[in-house]
Amino acid sequence: MTESTTAQATAGTAQIGVTGLAVMGRNLARNLARHGYTVAVHNRSSSRTRSLVEEAGHEGTFVPSESMAEFVASLERPRKVVIMVKAGAPTDAVIDELVPLLEEGDIVVDAGNAHFPDTVRRERALRAHGLHFVGTGVSGGEEGALNGPSIMPGGTRESYASLGPILEDISAKVDGVPCCTYVGPDGAGHFVKMVHNGIEYADMQLIAEAYDLLRQGLGASAREIGEIFARWNTGDLESFLIEITADVLQHVDAETGQAFVDVVLDQAEQKGTGRWTVQNGLDLGVPITGIAEATFARALSGSVPQREAARAVLPADAEPWEVTDREAFVEDVRLALYASKVVAYSQGFDQIAAASAENGWDIDRGAMARIWRGGCIIRARFLDRITEAYEREPGLPLLLADEYFTGAVGNGLAAWRRVVAQAATHGVPTPAFSSSLAYYDGVRAQRLPAALVQAQRDFFGAHTYRRVDKEGTFHTEWSGDRNESEA
Amino acid sequence: MTESTTAQATAGTAQIGVTGLAVMGRNLARNLARHGYTVAVHNRSSSRTRSLVEEAGHEGTFVPSESMAEFVASLERPRKVVIMVKAGAPTDAVIDELVPLLEEGDIVVDAGNAHFPDTVRRERALRAHGLHFVGTGVSGGEEGALNGPSIMPGGTRESYASLGPILEDISAKVDGVPCCTYVGPDGAGHFVKMVHNGIEYADMQLIAEAYDLLRQGLGASAREIGEIFARWNTGDLESFLIEITADVLQHVDAETGQAFVDVVLDQAEQKGTGRWTVQNGLDLGVPITGIAEATFARALSGSVPQREAARAVLPADAEPWEVTDREAFVEDVRLALYASKVVAYSQGFDQIAAASAENGWDIDRGAMARIWRGGCIIRARFLDRITEAYEREPGLPLLLADEYFTGAVGNGLAAWRRVVAQAATHGVPTPAFSSSLAYYDGVRAQRLPAALVQAQRDFFGAHTYRRVDKEGTFHTEWSGDRNESEA
Repeated sequence: MTESTTAQATAGTAQIGVTGLAVMGRNLARNLARHGYTVAVHNRSSSRTRSLVEEAGHEGTFVPSESMAEFVASLERPRKVVIMVKAGAPTDAVIDELVPLLEEGDIVVDAGNAHFPDTVRRERALRAHGLHFVGTGVSGGEEGALNGPSIMPGGTRESYASLGPILEDISAKVDGVPCCTYVGPDGAGHFVKMVHNGIEYADMQLIAEAYDLLRQGLGASAREIGEIFARWNTGDLESFLIEITADVLQHVDAETGQAFVDVVLDQAEQKGTGRWTVQNGLDLGVPITGIAEATFARALSGSVPQREAARAVLPADAEPWEVTDREAFVEDVRLALYASKVVAYSQGFDQIAAASAENGWDIDRGAMARIWRGGCIIRARFLDRITEAYEREPGLPLLLADEYFTGAVGNGLAAWRRVVAQAATHGVPTPAFSSSLAYYDGVRAQRLPAALVQAQRDFFGAHTYRRVDKEGTFHTEWSGDRNESEA
Repeated sequence: MTESTTAQATAGTAQIGVTGLAVMGRNLARNLARHGYTVAVHNRSSSRTRSLVEEAGHEGTFVPSESMAEFVASLERPRKVVIMVKAGAPTDAVIDELVPLLEEGDIVVDAGNAHFPDTVRRERALRAHGLHFVGTGVSGGEEGALNGPSIMPGGTRESYASLGPILEDISAKVDGVPCCTYVGPDGAGHFVKMVHNGIEYADMQLIAEAYDLLRQGLGASAREIGEIFARWNTGDLESFLIEITADVLQHVDAETGQAFVDVVLDQAEQKGTGRWTVQNGLDLGVPITGIAEATFARALSGSVPQREAARAVLPADAEPWEVTDREAFVEDVRLALYASKVVAYSQGFDQIAAASAENGWDIDRGAMARIWRGGCIIRARFLDRITEAYEREPGLPLLLADEYFTGAVGNGLAAWRRVVAQAATHGVPTPAFSSSLAYYDGVRAQRLPAALVQAQRDFFGAHTYRRVDKEGTFHTEWSGDRNESEA
């Protein structure tokens, strides 16, 4: 970056470049070209670059390069380079190759799935070189990358001024509003994407539990339950995940003629963002129990030796389940799903607020809900309600306490209680439903038994306690005269 | 370590040394001296060393030193140096000071609360110097350190041959058996101590929920519930934590005349080992939901702005609770507590097995339960049942599936279901009870709705799935013809 090379001397004409042309990078480049941008493209092995230009060249203007130096030289300044390679060491390798070729004010965009502390580290390193580093979440998979993803860019406001309009252009639109906005400094973009994925875990687990309840409570087939989900998708629950659930449940396996879901092995895998989200929630001290239970539910499903040992011997001892009023039960499950979902989102937005405060990111939570309305996996009608809640009160301490959500959950509360009680009675595992209700009852409790926990801690570890009736920190001499002293 | 100094030339006479004489180190040194060992003692500021010798000198033989070099010189070889300082940088500082003074074969013991990855790192560094590094868990607080803690040493077997007998000597004894044994290489000792603390979190939260249920279900006073816990302590639940719960609940605040627990602020604090345990469980993919819910329950109790916002507006909409058969209800809660506790321990031992396999530690789980029977916070009668289970089957894949525990939980299962259902119905937050039951029903399930989750993942992310009826990994072309192909 410090010395000019021949390549740097001639600023090119491409408005933005993409390096890393596997399916995500390729589709992002095509999306940019389709929006009229001249797109520099580069890949470590040039066969991918060639095939992109051959197959999609008619969609717009691509400037292919074989070398990184040529690629950088083909960009107009300040250069905008989007890296779309595997998170971790490959990203660092590309950055290391790029940095010496760039000049002050250039913008490096990591659009991969980086863990946000890596983004914080990289932003600091590139800032020292006078470069802007933008870690951006991109959600929506291959199809989103091509046709409009939800984009969550972090970094400097200065870089957003020139980069943001391009990203907004290629993002999904809902009611004409782009699903892209400036998130916050350094790791904020990748952090918000991580929480998005954590919420996605919770949402999927809640849907799975609702399905299981309907299956066991009604003895209904996958297809019938698919029809119920299709109906739900016309109301408050309307969302991409409910839509695809309806679709999946109604899909028939061609080979066996059985419901597709019944031939799929019941072991859910994970790529790590749920885990990261929960680990971060623990670091921040934010109870994100819905995401935690969803992450652990996947782990449990894959605990094969444990499941085999348990299935062989553990009794159910559960009452046989015969739902009599089927319509009412379906409605109970729907209300319980919606209420549990609100809790999961409330917890996730709580986590964003805590991280934002801890890192000085100043994240606008309402804007996050707005850019998740399209393009991404958790896109849903009810995200508008979240945006409205934060518009009513930007500093809202708890999403659940917003008037709309208090009303929505309150409306389904009795149903939610019935469903969770029935699941316990009849032996249907509903970790996320149950945990969300326990959170609801915990956060609204006048008194929690945490007082006993703190008293125990003082008893065995002299960890002290506070009192309800005066300021200060106290300790009781438990093994002595039991006098209290101020600690 | 490489060069001999005057100090090193004269090997001293003390059999073991302790550096760091705050209350834990001081009590450990006194414990050693009381057992007839000549104990070298050292502290950064020598006033603590002097006061220890002045006040406890009559209990045995102490060899005080003002400098680290003098301290090291006062030890017979191979030297055994116990470090008892704050975890983190202070421990590293003491190690850095010690290492140049030691000689090949000497043993450095970190008896503080290190996070096990730090212990792995330190063990590797000291091994390169020809030194043994023993990271050991010590549980039991100040009182245990003095009168017999539970001790969980990691490191080489070679170091245990000379160090182990001393640690066994000063450990707690149950039925004449020491609460100390060799755990495994490098970080194994501190790892097991971490899981011990995680289980402690779960146990305390379960007790707190049982208390809350009795309080709300019976409308009983803290003192009355204390009497119930005292009674429970004569049966299967007999344990230190139940004993002190009975004690705490019956304690009256001298200032107000109220039950002590009622004047304690209901915000439970934490020092981080619960968090570490859950973060590790996520890394290992072991569902330790009881510990996770307990850790998050503490976080929730301290979420003051969220609780204030929620209390102001969230409805309870719960049925009024009038328990009619009080005796039966108390017994139900007791059985539910026991069953939930078994799940929490089963999950914790699952985590030990997974970490042991991952790190090649070869930890004997039955032995861990045995050394937890005395000295430590979770000491309990039922740990004998765990030892017996692993004696019956050392490779037991799931503690719950041992014949004793299957029977014990099966016996309380109907009660457990009633209690969790009632908590949901009446709005009492029981995250750990509910989560444990959901785990139980999940691990024993013939089919989990994880199949739907995996199908969703294939739909939106082409993450593939496996089938129940044949080997292989498959993908369905969801946006195309919906044909299935092998991936």
